[in-house]
Amino acid sequence: MTDPHHPPKSALVISAHAADFVWRAGGAIALHAAMGWKVTVVCLSFGERGESAKLWKQPGMTLDRVKAARRAEAERAAVALGVHDLICFDLGDYPLQMDRADKDRLVDVMRDVDPAFMLSHSSYDPYNADHMMTTQIVLECRSTAQAWGHKPGGKVLGAPQLYLFEPHQTEQMGWKPDTFLDITPVWDRKRAAIECMEGQEHLWDFYTRVAQNRANHFTRNSGGQSGGRACKYAEGFQSVFPRTVDML
Amino acid sequence: MTDPHHPPKSALVISAHAADFVWRAGGAIALHAAMGWKVTVVCLSFGERGESAKLWKQPGMTLDRVKAARRAEAERAAVALGVHDLICFDLGDYPLQMDRADKDRLVDVMRDVDPAFMLSHSSYDPYNADHMMTTQIVLECRSTAQAWGHKPGGKVLGAPQLYLFEPHQTEQMGWKPDTFLDITPVWDRKRAAIECMEGQEHLWDFYTRVAQNRANHFTRNSGGQSGGRACKYAEGFQSVFPRTVDML
Amino acid sequence: MTDPHHPPKSALVISAHAADFVWRAGGAIALHAAMGWKVTVVCLSFGERGESAKLWKQPGMTLDRVKAARRAEAERAAVALGVHDLICFDLGDYPLQMDRADKDRLVDVMRDVDPAFMLSHSSYDPYNADHMMTTQIVLECRSTAQAWGHKPGGKVLGAPQLYLFEPHQTEQMGWKPDTFLDITPVWDRKRAAIECMEGQEHLWDFYTRVAQNRANHFTRNSGGQSGGRACKYAEGFQSVFPRTVDML
Amino acid sequence: MTDPHHPPKSALVISAHAADFVWRAGGAIALHAAMGWKVTVVCLSFGERGESAKLWKQPGMTLDRVKAARRAEAERAAVALGVHDLICFDLGDYPLQMDRADKDRLVDVMRDVDPAFMLSHSSYDPYNADHMMTTQIVLECRSTAQAWGHKPGGKVLGAPQLYLFEPHQTEQMGWKPDTFLDITPVWDRKRAAIECMEGQEHLWDFYTRVAQNRANHFTRNSGGQSGGRACKYAEGFQSVFPRTVDML
Amino acid sequence: MTDPHHPPKSALVISAHAADFVWRAGGAIALHAAMGWKVTVVCLSFGERGESAKLWKQPGMTLDRVKAARRAEAERAAVALGVHDLICFDLGDYPLQMDRADKDRLVDVMRDVDPAFMLSHSSYDPYNADHMMTTQIVLECRSTAQAWGHKPGGKVLGAPQLYLFEPHQTEQMGWKPDTFLDITPVWDRKRAAIECMEGQEHLWDFYTRVAQNRANHFTRNSGGQSGGRACKYAEGFQSVFPRTVDML
Amino acid sequence: MTDPHHPPKSALVISAHAADFVWRAGGAIALHAAMGWKVTVVCLSFGERGESAKLWKQPGMTLDRVKAARRAEAERAAVALGVHDLICFDLGDYPLQMDRADKDRLVDVMRDVDPAFMLSHSSYDPYNADHMMTTQIVLECRSTAQAWGHKPGGKVLGAPQLYLFEPHQTEQMGWKPDTFLDITPVWDRKRAAIECMEGQEHLWDFYTRVAQNRANHFTRNSGGQSGGRACKYAEGFQSVFPRTVDML
Repeated sequence: MTDPHHPPKSALVISAHAADFVWRAGGAIALHAAMGWKVTVVCLSFGERGESAKLWKQPGMTLDRVKAARRAEAERAAVALGVHDLICFDLGDYPLQMDRADKDRLVDVMRDVDPAFMLSHSSYDPYNADHMMTTQIVLECRSTAQAWGHKPGGKVLGAPQLYLFEPHQTEQMGWKPDTFLDITPVWDRKRAAIECMEGQEHLWDFYTRVAQNRANHFTRNSGGQSGGRACKYAEGFQSVFPRTVDML
Repeated sequence: MTDPHHPPKSALVISAHAADFVWRAGGAIALHAAMGWKVTVVCLSFGERGESAKLWKQPGMTLDRVKAARRAEAERAAVALGVHDLICFDLGDYPLQMDRADKDRLVDVMRDVDPAFMLSHSSYDPYNADHMMTTQIVLECRSTAQAWGHKPGGKVLGAPQLYLFEPHQTEQMGWKPDTFLDITPVWDRKRAAIECMEGQEHLWDFYTRVAQNRANHFTRNSGGQSGGRACKYAEGFQSVFPRTVDML
Repeated sequence: MTDPHHPPKSALVISAHAADFVWRAGGAIALHAAMGWKVTVVCLSFGERGESAKLWKQPGMTLDRVKAARRAEAERAAVALGVHDLICFDLGDYPLQMDRADKDRLVDVMRDVDPAFMLSHSSYDPYNADHMMTTQIVLECRSTAQAWGHKPGGKVLGAPQLYLFEPHQTEQMGWKPDTFLDITPVWDRKRAAIECMEGQEHLWDFYTRVAQNRANHFTRNSGGQSGGRACKYAEGFQSVFPRTVDML
Repeated sequence: MTDPHHPPKSALVISAHAADFVWRAGGAIALHAAMGWKVTVVCLSFGERGESAKLWKQPGMTLDRVKAARRAEAERAAVALGVHDLICFDLGDYPLQMDRADKDRLVDVMRDVDPAFMLSHSSYDPYNADHMMTTQIVLECRSTAQAWGHKPGGKVLGAPQLYLFEPHQTEQMGWKPDTFLDITPVWDRKRAAIECMEGQEHLWDFYTRVAQNRANHFTRNSGGQSGGRACKYAEGFQSVFPRTVDML
Repeated sequence: MTDPHHPPKSALVISAHAADFVWRAGGAIALHAAMGWKVTVVCLSFGERGESAKLWKQPGMTLDRVKAARRAEAERAAVALGVHDLICFDLGDYPLQMDRADKDRLVDVMRDVDPAFMLSHSSYDPYNADHMMTTQIVLECRSTAQAWGHKPGGKVLGAPQLYLFEPHQTEQMGWKPDTFLDITPVWDRKRAAIECMEGQEHLWDFYTRVAQNRANHFTRNSGGQSGGRACKYAEGFQSVFPRTVDML
Repeated sequence: MTDPHHPPKSALVISAHAADFVWRAGGAIALHAAMGWKVTVVCLSFGERGESAKLWKQPGMTLDRVKAARRAEAERAAVALGVHDLICFDLGDYPLQMDRADKDRLVDVMRDVDPAFMLSHSSYDPYNADHMMTTQIVLECRSTAQAWGHKPGGKVLGAPQLYLFEPHQTEQMGWKPDTFLDITPVWDRKRAAIECMEGQEHLWDFYTRVAQNRANHFTRNSGGQSGGRACKYAEGFQSVFPRTVDML
């Protein structure tokens, strides 16, 4: 699997907050990691202000302590999923803000990772401006990373697919999955990663049910209304770009 | 390739008029046929009234003569593409009409062919009511073919993908391709089939240019703005149903 | 509650197949019934051909036996939910077909029930032509029921809201809920009704999870990302018509 | 204006019910008539069942009397607008139904009139199934009228634009105007035609206000937020097909 | 009404320019104020550059004089409507610009007001970049105001509905009302407030007609095509978030 | 043509990168120039980083040399098309960035040119963040240019139409043309301009085929499926704003 002539494939996940990659793409990460892929996860923020209510309710809490706690959770989850590299940009959240240098850093990561595909948030999310902005910036940085004149001489990014992972209220976000991924073989790892998110225990079972119901969709779409391939846990994704294939 | 333990895969194309399968899916048909698939084409009509202007301008033309000419063209094109079975329903066109028995016949074909995927028209087409109705009926018949109580004891259809092939003015039809298929290896066959359509010579070069420009899109989407896999001819398709996969 | 000066309010559910009203609106039915509403359910078919795979796999099964079994299940479920009147049109399914007389019968029911609101399927469903057609016909019949010249002298229908209940794959159907209903107080009844559907046991837990996750959405939308009103089970609905209110 | 070498241009309006052409396109009709065009109006029904509530509230009313009253109103309105030919198909309403012969009759009218443009209803209308069906059938008949093999030897229809006129609740119908027509010069005629609709007096001022507010939109779009061409009354239309031009 | 155990409810209107809250939400403001609600209005700018053409046409006009005149008009209108608090951010217009501190100020207002609902502009407006940006920022600030880690210890915002009020050309803005509010009881106040806008007299009757026609929609949707509750003036709103209810 | 009482009309093209105006609007430019219009082209950048891969592959290339080469190409193309004024903002690309002063400069150009119409990019382009941002800024600057209080005393912009020219993958960008322009008379000039783009030779034939296929659409929409006005080369455009007309 480490044959220098065939280096492992790689994927890149860009997560607005520290936990998004777990709920929304933990199965995809663990599955590809288990197949020998190198999966890099970028957390633009720790979700320290907007997704850490439980921590903030503790007396004497400070921003640094919240960030440290969230970082620790994310790191444990990354280990559980087999993440190759977890990169925390620590840009702040609610609102997330990225200046030119931050974007250039993300461009560098894209070029370094050279992913076969990328994963990020839905394009629209009226509940969460950070999620929307993340995808907008991912598309902008993908363009820049493809530019031969950006840091000339560096390795130019190809045309990796961008999959949008599942948001919390799919219909409100206008998110429509076109791809269901069977994550049954790695479900234990995803659940373990989910349980690292101690501050959001109310979501553990929510996202377990999401995975179970997406498995129903997987089965139904693989074999019709009265059959199909067995699947216990699945994740859904929406593709931004068309696929290029040699067979339908 | 005819190992009884691994029968060839099959695909089903449903074409409102005799020539649609050539312009819009000729490459997909020829490519899969060349890989050993059995591709069945259903022509619901010959396009005898609405797509045969050149024939009708000849003196003394009759409906039967037009239909015979169109059937002959379709048969020659089918041979050129390697179609396994060409089934002409001869239902009339402009407007195309299907009663319950016609639909049941299409259900039978779906079950007999047991396709890995199906191909048909865009869901909307203000220029062509026959095209819209065809896709609506294909979806209805797909449902019926999946019903265990329809002709009980027969083989129930699974959940084949339905790809919508390229309409004539894509943007007006709200058609958005999500899949580009490289048809370079079989382009000669598609062009040969196209040239069987003597009554619509004005479209030969139009659809050749479509294939060339879709190849540009194929290349661009396989490798970014300054590279990608070489491709000379391609076809685009829109998926109706989500894919179920084991790897992104 | 039976004061003749204030007759109970009424609602009307139109279900393409015998089980749809249970999965998709059982909570709304039970909740309003518990508040003293008269809820009428119309089942256009029993789903005897397309949603009874388990029965058809039994040896010697016939259409009549399937219909009888499905009718019995629907009747038990209706009792569990407190349905005021269950009306089975027995029109056949996959495909469902309604002629002018069938539509007039539905118009009569609408006028007789005089509902404060109606419930039916999503407007689009590529998996299920019966579902799509049902909503289209419900809208057509609503128009007819409002026509003073239809059976003149009869009671003309007002302008009841039409809520579209939750389809099986919401995103594929383009269904977007704008209303979440807390069904916690009547969950036991809905679950009991669900368990009447013996032929579709694989869906019992699926729709339980749907109700649990919609409850999360209820809570989140009633109080933000870190709070909100407790809710254990909910159902989602999409409104077709605007509301008319005296307060925002 | 009746030079045989330059026959007047013609337009065709297809109205589901007897009054639709007045509220929604009366200005366009009168304006083109005043310029010497021959404008033909087809009323598929009189709106006798669904749009004649006021008449039905009179004692002893019958369907024939309602139809006669509605026909008389439509005829007077047509005269007021300068309609060249008013053709009443008398197909019944709520629901409007058209069989193959009715459609063929509409095809004949399209070919006879040979319109430079056609006008009909919005594509979607959840309040009014007749409106939706009318536009669907107009598109179908437009296709048939263009077919060389339909009644071969007859004059084949060209490619007239189809404008969708303004429905009653534009936003609910998904109707988006792309063309505002200044009808100030013929407003008196439109108002006179409106006042022929005695059974719907509650709409006289409604549609007068629509015309006044569309005039504001006309002005604003002809000259920006602080100016523009004066216009007192206007109508809005949505184009189905692209324009073909020699200058932008 | 000032029982300390039941403080009055509150609402928050965010208006890009000084007059928007009058045309688009004046009725909602006056109605809720009349019911004892505290309605706060934030004007991000005075519309001094882009919506004051009449003033700028006067000789010797300066930016400060325009702003003073617009502020005075807004204040008089606020009094007429019963606004609890009018807050002018004075950020400049065409283009409106908000930096991080401006956004934080809006977050503070949201938390202070603790509104049961908020009102702002349509999500899209090709005529007016300020309108679009306002709604985008309102959503961003709503997220921030909900974040426990933003100014920890402060009162965190719940999940107030955001209603989008009516833009000037609804169809071009993709705005679709789902709620009609009867403002008949307070129409005199709205008209009085409208007449405070001396610089835009050309819009007084325009928005009066809007209110009259929305009243027709109110009536029609409360009782069908031939009846419904009487209503003389109404306003329309589009909800961003789903409702959570205990009864349909 | 230079009668001072009837100055030539003018148009304004805003192009994100130096070559966009050639591929996407070269025909419209040349056609109107040939009719005596003054067509101004603004290139916000040279596309030096993102659209000059061929140049960057040359050894020793620098940003300045790329920009010089791209500027020279754009200037030659402008001459070929008959552009009145080519203005290079030189703002950098991938990502393109515009601050307040850059926007004010574009506002000045809009007012100076006083165009009858403007041309720019599609509203959405996931492949190219620069394209999306350009159109967003064009709309913002159009608003500002219309504001009487922006640089008071200057000539205020009217309400010019904004046409969106054809992007590279129309369906992915959600671009839908509503206007086809016959550019046959000036095709030679457009092709000559295209051939000035030496760095993107792979697109010469691509955009020639686009023009040929749009000509087919022009013909088809001017005369139906079996006829129409001859046209060899055309361009397609999408209108942002409604038209105001005196005749349909």
